Amino acid sequence: MTTGGDVPTMATVTIWNEYRHEREDEAVTAVYPDGIHETLADALADDHDVTTATFDEPEHGLTADVLERTDVLLWWGHEAHDEVSESVVDRVHQRVLEGMGLIVLHSGHYAKVFKRLMGTTCSLQYREDGATERLWVVDPGHPIADGLEESIELPRTEMYGEPFDVPEPDRLVFVSWFEGGEVFRSGCCYRRGSGRIFYFRPGHETYPIYEHDAVRRVVRNAVEWARPTDGAPRTFGERE
Amino acid sequence: MTTGGDVPTMATVTIWNEYRHEREDEAVTAVYPDGIHETLADALADDHDVTTATFDEPEHGLTADVLERTDVLLWWGHEAHDEVSESVVDRVHQRVLEGMGLIVLHSGHYAKVFKRLMGTTCSLQYREDGATERLWVVDPGHPIADGLEESIELPRTEMYGEPFDVPEPDRLVFVSWFEGGEVFRSGCCYRRGSGRIFYFRPGHETYPIYEHDAVRRVVRNAVEWARPTDGAPRTFGERE
Amino acid sequence: MTTGGDVPTMATVTIWNEYRHEREDEAVTAVYPDGIHETLADALADDHDVTTATFDEPEHGLTADVLERTDVLLWWGHEAHDEVSESVVDRVHQRVLEGMGLIVLHSGHYAKVFKRLMGTTCSLQYREDGATERLWVVDPGHPIADGLEESIELPRTEMYGEPFDVPEPDRLVFVSWFEGGEVFRSGCCYRRGSGRIFYFRPGHETYPIYEHDAVRRVVRNAVEWARPTDGAPRTFGERE
Amino acid sequence: MTTGGDVPTMATVTIWNEYRHEREDEAVTAVYPDGIHETLADALADDHDVTTATFDEPEHGLTADVLERTDVLLWWGHEAHDEVSESVVDRVHQRVLEGMGLIVLHSGHYAKVFKRLMGTTCSLQYREDGATERLWVVDPGHPIADGLEESIELPRTEMYGEPFDVPEPDRLVFVSWFEGGEVFRSGCCYRRGSGRIFYFRPGHETYPIYEHDAVRRVVRNAVEWARPTDGAPRTFGERE
Repeated sequence: MTTGGDVPTMATVTIWNEYRHEREDEAVTAVYPDGIHETLADALADDHDVTTATFDEPEHGLTADVLERTDVLLWWGHEAHDEVSESVVDRVHQRVLEGMGLIVLHSGHYAKVFKRLMGTTCSLQYREDGATERLWVVDPGHPIADGLEESIELPRTEMYGEPFDVPEPDRLVFVSWFEGGEVFRSGCCYRRGSGRIFYFRPGHETYPIYEHDAVRRVVRNAVEWARPTDGAPRTFGERE
Repeated sequence: MTTGGDVPTMATVTIWNEYRHEREDEAVTAVYPDGIHETLADALADDHDVTTATFDEPEHGLTADVLERTDVLLWWGHEAHDEVSESVVDRVHQRVLEGMGLIVLHSGHYAKVFKRLMGTTCSLQYREDGATERLWVVDPGHPIADGLEESIELPRTEMYGEPFDVPEPDRLVFVSWFEGGEVFRSGCCYRRGSGRIFYFRPGHETYPIYEHDAVRRVVRNAVEWARPTDGAPRTFGERE
Repeated sequence: MTTGGDVPTMATVTIWNEYRHEREDEAVTAVYPDGIHETLADALADDHDVTTATFDEPEHGLTADVLERTDVLLWWGHEAHDEVSESVVDRVHQRVLEGMGLIVLHSGHYAKVFKRLMGTTCSLQYREDGATERLWVVDPGHPIADGLEESIELPRTEMYGEPFDVPEPDRLVFVSWFEGGEVFRSGCCYRRGSGRIFYFRPGHETYPIYEHDAVRRVVRNAVEWARPTDGAPRTFGERE
Repeated sequence: MTTGGDVPTMATVTIWNEYRHEREDEAVTAVYPDGIHETLADALADDHDVTTATFDEPEHGLTADVLERTDVLLWWGHEAHDEVSESVVDRVHQRVLEGMGLIVLHSGHYAKVFKRLMGTTCSLQYREDGATERLWVVDPGHPIADGLEESIELPRTEMYGEPFDVPEPDRLVFVSWFEGGEVFRSGCCYRRGSGRIFYFRPGHETYPIYEHDAVRRVVRNAVEWARPTDGAPRTFGERE
């Protein structure tokens, strides 16, 4: 936490991307030629110390060293969830409990580490129809909503519908309206251990969602919100 | 609370209705000829000990005796919120803290007693356009959702939109989708003191919402959920 | 959920106990000669359909059939947490998400299934000093506190101290005071999927805690609270 | 919210004190010769733009102008709660909903504005016995706990005991242990509208609690935590 008058250091952000669709599917390559991670990095580069990591790197690019210096980790994955190494998941999980922020994007609801942190299936309903989504700010006092209008409109996207099998969020920031008749809790805040977790629904790979100004603003806000604070000791075990 | 094997007594339910629109406006009379309270009473009569009370009765029909024997109070009001007596509001407020359940319906979001229990303005957005609402069950494990389908569709109603200026609910059971593009947290659970409070959005006076089977089921479920339990002593003050 | 006038059926309760200390350690045998599960069964037998299951039975006594007909599962474990079969944990986990209640007792905070449901380490501080604990009811309106006094005093027990690495409870019912100077959130309610989960601290194996009337009352109350309700469909996957 | 690289401006803090005990009771004068507000101002002066306001000033020193420029308001009151002007309470309430932070100290649990924001009686148990209190950090990841040890010990204070008739806190940061056998939820976070509210128990007028380093650190941390963020529009009313 910064106290008045101090200059806060920039958050160190690691953007993790599965990075498969962009190399396998021309429609996705057209939207994210350098990968979703690079588009997200571009949204954060001005105010953050950003690095990226992808599935195919050794240890998925998430070595102990990388995680140790990461303040906030972004996670985008889809088709390779089950292939993510258990030991990397263990490591990310432990770092979140120690205080590292975690922002889980779109299809990342099925990421191993998100399911582990939630304790539920994280299942939902979906339909790939390219219809309109409108994300309503239901908690206008939340810092993740800083600088937004009352809603964000995404002209074409995939639909996610309720029920969403997650624990009741600590704070619900966004609820999505979908043209086809569904709703979804699309911005959910949690804390587990000392770590702040934000699930943010937008980001389908075949639409340029991460080029959208308001979406980029949410990602930046969420990174600031999720930064670790000093806290008090987490001491466990036998006591004299 | 009943323990297995006991026969639970029927809940004593008092349905409070402002009962003005139905006598002043022909369109409303056509929908609720005997008043909204009688339509609600009909939904509950089979399994509950139901009485009604209306604004024009002495003390609005909510005497100390009536409240003392009420397990769950339903509240429908709209145009006369500001005319409701402070002393009656005090009494209802106190009874809720002692354990009486309170179910606040539709425009009751602006009832004095609801605002007092919430501590916020309870403001929202609205549009009287007679368009479709679909209430999604976002918490399918909640007893207020017992026996429902995954959503409830109301073909014509008034729209309520976010932001809804209430504290974050303890449990959010329903989120509404509106044809015109809005969403609303339309089923919100709270506890204050020993009392359970449920805000349920449906119920505009010019549409026969309370004739709808699933809406009636929700009202019945909410009454059962809101019934007082024995609890432990609430003892305050100086301690030896 | 029962509606007024119906006779609720008795809850089917399965009490799972590791059942090792009682057979290995004379001090424990003296307190629980038939095992902790039998003492707990005795507390529930009058009003519930009770069966027991222990670690050494095939599939730890928790076959698919047993779990299918269990409304509420009690869990007491300590030294063999790590030996509990992953497939049994998977099965219990899934049944909780489907609605089965789960009551986790004392050292069960480290049970695999509890850690999996919480998503955290569930670590805490402890001291085996046989000093006094007083559990204060901090939520006197909660049904788990039905019929209690303002606090429960246990003259001799093991101490558990904060921090307790669990998610913020949905409802906190008890906070313990310990003679040695510590506090602990000793009655914590959660929901995951459709299942209700209650963590209750008392129950060290070397003290006759489960013979204590108020503790037995809490266990009975918790079983009633944790019973499954019908709910609404939990349908996931692709949507037309 | 500050984004990385920006210099955050100092929070503007207004410390409100009833300021009666200090002028009427020699024992209190001895502890707080210039008033509790000056001792608190001293704790905040280095990093904040601090002003004070007291009961006897016109409009209790809380004019619309003062509140307009206040980021965070501290509130200490005790014997004159009922004499606080309703119009000032209205104004403070509205400013909290708009985003002003509010830190309510010790006997301020009975302040009109706190009761209005909570919607409950805010009653508790108490005993003036000058015994020891130990505040345990139960949420070591919370920014209000930044830089603390695992507990704060106050050698002599007044006891506050449960039940504390407030809504379940959004986050519970501290739980107090008292030498005499009681516990208390002594650090409670809430949001109402856009405003952050922190109730912090320590601060009895006859003990030099606000000279205690860790207590002063909590007050500073709470001020930073409670600062307004920009948020999104809170627009209510009829919608096109």
